Amino acid sequence: MEIITDIASLRARLKHESSIGFVPTMGNLHEGHLSLVQTAQQKADRVVVSIFVNRLQFAPAEDFDQYPRTLADDCKLLKNRDVHIVFAPGEKSLYPVKQEFMLDPPPVTDMLEGQFRPGFFRGVSTVVLKLFNIVQPQVAIFGKKDYQQLHLMRELVQQLNVPVEIVAGETVRAADNLALSSRNRYLTHEERAEATRLYQVLSQVKQRVEGGRRNFHDLEENAKKILCGHGWKVDYIALRHRDTLAPASECDQNIVVLGAARLGKTRLIDNLEIDVKT
Amino acid sequence: MEIITDIASLRARLKHESSIGFVPTMGNLHEGHLSLVQTAQQKADRVVVSIFVNRLQFAPAEDFDQYPRTLADDCKLLKNRDVHIVFAPGEKSLYPVKQEFMLDPPPVTDMLEGQFRPGFFRGVSTVVLKLFNIVQPQVAIFGKKDYQQLHLMRELVQQLNVPVEIVAGETVRAADNLALSSRNRYLTHEERAEATRLYQVLSQVKQRVEGGRRNFHDLEENAKKILCGHGWKVDYIALRHRDTLAPASECDQNIVVLGAARLGKTRLIDNLEIDVKT
Repeated sequence: MEIITDIASLRARLKHESSIGFVPTMGNLHEGHLSLVQTAQQKADRVVVSIFVNRLQFAPAEDFDQYPRTLADDCKLLKNRDVHIVFAPGEKSLYPVKQEFMLDPPPVTDMLEGQFRPGFFRGVSTVVLKLFNIVQPQVAIFGKKDYQQLHLMRELVQQLNVPVEIVAGETVRAADNLALSSRNRYLTHEERAEATRLYQVLSQVKQRVEGGRRNFHDLEENAKKILCGHGWKVDYIALRHRDTLAPASECDQNIVVLGAARLGKTRLIDNLEIDVKT
Repeated sequence: MEIITDIASLRARLKHESSIGFVPTMGNLHEGHLSLVQTAQQKADRVVVSIFVNRLQFAPAEDFDQYPRTLADDCKLLKNRDVHIVFAPGEKSLYPVKQEFMLDPPPVTDMLEGQFRPGFFRGVSTVVLKLFNIVQPQVAIFGKKDYQQLHLMRELVQQLNVPVEIVAGETVRAADNLALSSRNRYLTHEERAEATRLYQVLSQVKQRVEGGRRNFHDLEENAKKILCGHGWKVDYIALRHRDTLAPASECDQNIVVLGAARLGKTRLIDNLEIDVKT
């Protein structure tokens, strides 16, 4: 496995590759990431995983400094999975000067995550476009765990004609169904036990919608109430149309229920797709 | 010469080309554009010229509807110059849905042209990135006539890691030194005779700076006064550092003097580079 840290070397290494699968990450890898890697391996001859904690997508009050950096461990995991190339650029490689040319994502990014993390999607889409331009992959894999981000990446390649196919990776869960996330490691022992409730309430909403319930607002409010009753601070529980992320309407068949809530100092997100049978 | 109007066909046509020179235009071609084409031919094996009047870069009050569309004539000129491929997409090809994913250019674009044409550089950079992603050229040529745009394109590829080399083309002038521009055709006979004065005042500023004058503000104001005295409405006359477009300082050696002014209903721009000898 090659670990490359500068852009020129990576470009030179990839120059003659014609089937590149790309998995952009912020490191601190877990089975969720490794599942994306596996998908990339099925889709392309050569897999590049990038590891870069992207300052641009953190708000000043967020956990940029605290975000876990575990490059050596990450590389071990990737080597075990037969990854070919790790791109681990330093801050000065990607941002040699102040990043002033930004992407301005669509209004859909003002809601859900965007509402609670202003500038997040601006930072994500800017760094992803930069990485796409550096790696020039044919395929890039994004996990469904970050559902709105996946949606945004599809919009990005469509609206800006980026020649990259976006492939979705399924969310990987712990035995108790907590979605794997690098931020889970912030949880205390007690919080970790409670954390699975986010999945549980989303699951309950999913079952009810699949069972025919259409009082979406009530379902959302009820789910919030349950979480609040157990000490969570809820940012949103939202039933949305899966393709547009607009609020779900009664006749939508492709729905997703998304949730974001804080447990102590840790903010967790999760979502479940809902197929309404007609 | 091939004239291609849809993205998929162009991608298929260019798939195996490894040396593409790209000249993006809004059509209504003149010798200025053809000079850019010639530069592209020197730099690459295969030349693609795009012709697309980009609605995004026109403000509502500007001349989008009125902008001259002369595709048949343009293609004749390009065929005579041995251009290989013309990409002339329809509005629906580049903007099949409302363009919501935009580029947000750096603060430098708020001044000069950006000050008088709000949204212009946002529209320009968004369409150019789209075209870069479609054509995937190795080299792209932009004229010095649109000096700030050229500067912005360099910033775009640097800051977003776009794998395209930006090459500058010299401004082509009429016998009386008026910079060629598609908008010159808006001028009445009388205005056309007067139009050369923009070049003349810029030229006078250049001579004075080269002769040692450093009272930049006075030079700018004096140039404006001359133009106003002859019926022009001046947007700006500005001495700037050539690499940053920040206001020129006394010790700068690489300077450019830029001007924009309206004659009747026609807005003209021009500029001259100034080399200060030490």
